[in-house]
Amino acid sequence: DDIRTMAKEIVEKEIEKHAADGLGRVDYALASGGGKVVRHSEAYYFGKVGNWLPVVKGRNGVHDNAQKMLEPSFGEPGQCFALKGSHGFVEIRLRTSIVPEAVTLEHVARSVAYDRTSALKEFRISGWPNGRDEDSSVDQTERVLLFGEFKYDLERSNAQTFDLNPASSVINIVRLDFLSNHGSPSHTCIYRLRVHGYEPDSLMPLAIQL
Amino acid sequence: DDIRTMAKEIVEKEIEKHAADGLGRVDYALASGGGKVVRHSEAYYFGKVGNWLPVVKGRNGVHDNAQKMLEPSFGEPGQCFALKGSHGFVEIRLRTSIVPEAVTLEHVARSVAYDRTSALKEFRISGWPNGRDEDSSVDQTERVLLFGEFKYDLERSNAQTFDLNPASSVINIVRLDFLSNHGSPSHTCIYRLRVHGYEPDSLMPLAIQL
Amino acid sequence: DDIRTMAKEIVEKEIEKHAADGLGRVDYALASGGGKVVRHSEAYYFGKVGNWLPVVKGRNGVHDNAQKMLEPSFGEPGQCFALKGSHGFVEIRLRTSIVPEAVTLEHVARSVAYDRTSALKEFRISGWPNGRDEDSSVDQTERVLLFGEFKYDLERSNAQTFDLNPASSVINIVRLDFLSNHGSPSHTCIYRLRVHGYEPDSLMPLAIQL
Ligand SMILES: [K+]
Ligand SMILES: [K+]
Ligand SMILES: [K+]
Repeated sequence: DDIRTMAKEIVEKEIEKHAADGLGRVDYALASGGGKVVRHSEAYYFGKVGNWLPVVKGRNGVHDNAQKMLEPSFGEPGQCFALKGSHGFVEIRLRTSIVPEAVTLEHVARSVAYDRTSALKEFRISGWPNGRDEDSSVDQTERVLLFGEFKYDLERSNAQTFDLNPASSVINIVRLDFLSNHGSPSHTCIYRLRVHGYEPDSLMPLAIQL
Repeated sequence: DDIRTMAKEIVEKEIEKHAADGLGRVDYALASGGGKVVRHSEAYYFGKVGNWLPVVKGRNGVHDNAQKMLEPSFGEPGQCFALKGSHGFVEIRLRTSIVPEAVTLEHVARSVAYDRTSALKEFRISGWPNGRDEDSSVDQTERVLLFGEFKYDLERSNAQTFDLNPASSVINIVRLDFLSNHGSPSHTCIYRLRVHGYEPDSLMPLAIQL
Repeated sequence: DDIRTMAKEIVEKEIEKHAADGLGRVDYALASGGGKVVRHSEAYYFGKVGNWLPVVKGRNGVHDNAQKMLEPSFGEPGQCFALKGSHGFVEIRLRTSIVPEAVTLEHVARSVAYDRTSALKEFRISGWPNGRDEDSSVDQTERVLLFGEFKYDLERSNAQTFDLNPASSVINIVRLDFLSNHGSPSHTCIYRLRVHGYEPDSLMPLAIQL
């Protein structure tokens, strides 16, 4: 009976974590929270399949499927943002400015995947603070902060969290550069990228409260 | 081995409940089952965020986001209906007439929430039967039944079920009056409201069968 | 402590399976993977309910709700494709050609269902390879392969997997004939049909890689 009680406690705690978006960790890139893909390398075109992954250019040249990488995938292959080739980039504006601590990269689970060669392999995370006016005449390259280079491992679980180099800098744009994938010559699929960290107290009043 | 078998049984049962919409209890307010928000106090306008929570008035002055409170949230902050201020109301037409027994109020899980001050605190549940013609000239206030006043507790699990005063009355409109929230001066977010109960036998043939 | 460790391992494994679309088994009929309903018997019309299950004919006479049977249901009643009467059929084009091994038929969980008389009971699975041109002048009936007749049992768990007769044949169209349901005289609801199997090596390059 003691064992039964203990087992139930463990189960309930793990299911609670699973129900809380799988990780139980705040994601400042989540689309439903206000995160947004603002720029990316060329999207991949799936020619053969009828109503699936249509190529529609949204505002500012951002592909309509781009936001899929800021949404849960619910174990469904296809719920990803596909980019051309084995290297490229995506820039994401977070819901609010944060001090970043970690990112989580996720591919579809091995057990339901049709093929996993399109999974991202080596990647680099950088970021910068972005002015409200998004003034493109200002050179922002000198403000770019490098948070580390990482490798997504197909042998580990499908959602992998990577700790960033501590910088204590406040940013609201995160850039993912992918440098290689797991074998596909044509394209790379990003199922989800999450960005974890904390809001500096002084900026709290600017945050949208849910 | 006996322990392993027992542990597996507990896990499977709990996951089955989780997969059955989290509670494993019939919800007569669920949007996909025919539930519908028919009236509410003023919706909240999020000015800053681009493509998020757009304010679009649907038919009969019901906000397009209103149905979000009759749908699962899947652990995602933002999947809620936001109303102005710390008090207000929502009226829901159920999929069919029932004898109500309980309601479940749900906010986003603490571990993924950006902020929880917008969560509802004190609320009142009432309801009434509604004629098919929805004749507004008939004064329905005398038929309103009060089912109780409750408090949503941020320290408990995020989906909280409240038993209603037994009335044995058949209703198909449920009204939620929220009297306070957990601190936000600007707005209150309702992630989900479920309504539990049973269909009186005599009305069964009117129900849509799924 | 040993018991705690073991219990945690069991839980994590079961949750991983649950998160991997519930079964942890590849589904070649999944809509987000490219599966598509291409033909079906008459869809059912729900007259009474306002914004729910609208009857809209899509391209080629395929109902807009048809793809619901190739998507997860997330424990929500109503997320199904409703067909008229207690017998009829659906034909599905898979994402790619496979050697089929099993199908999984799923109704909404008992604990959240309003009514289960609309669940499918006896059914037959057949299939055939389909040319790219879909030339209707060619008689395909002689190429049809019967993979077995089965019965969906309301007393078992809601997702039931049925092993097909081994045929070692490559197909990309699967046909479901339902011969009876669990009591509803008006209609039959299909929440989800999955098709499992493996891709013959020679066809791999034709597959869309995710
Ligand atoms: K996704
Ligand atoms: K919701
Ligand atoms: K479904």
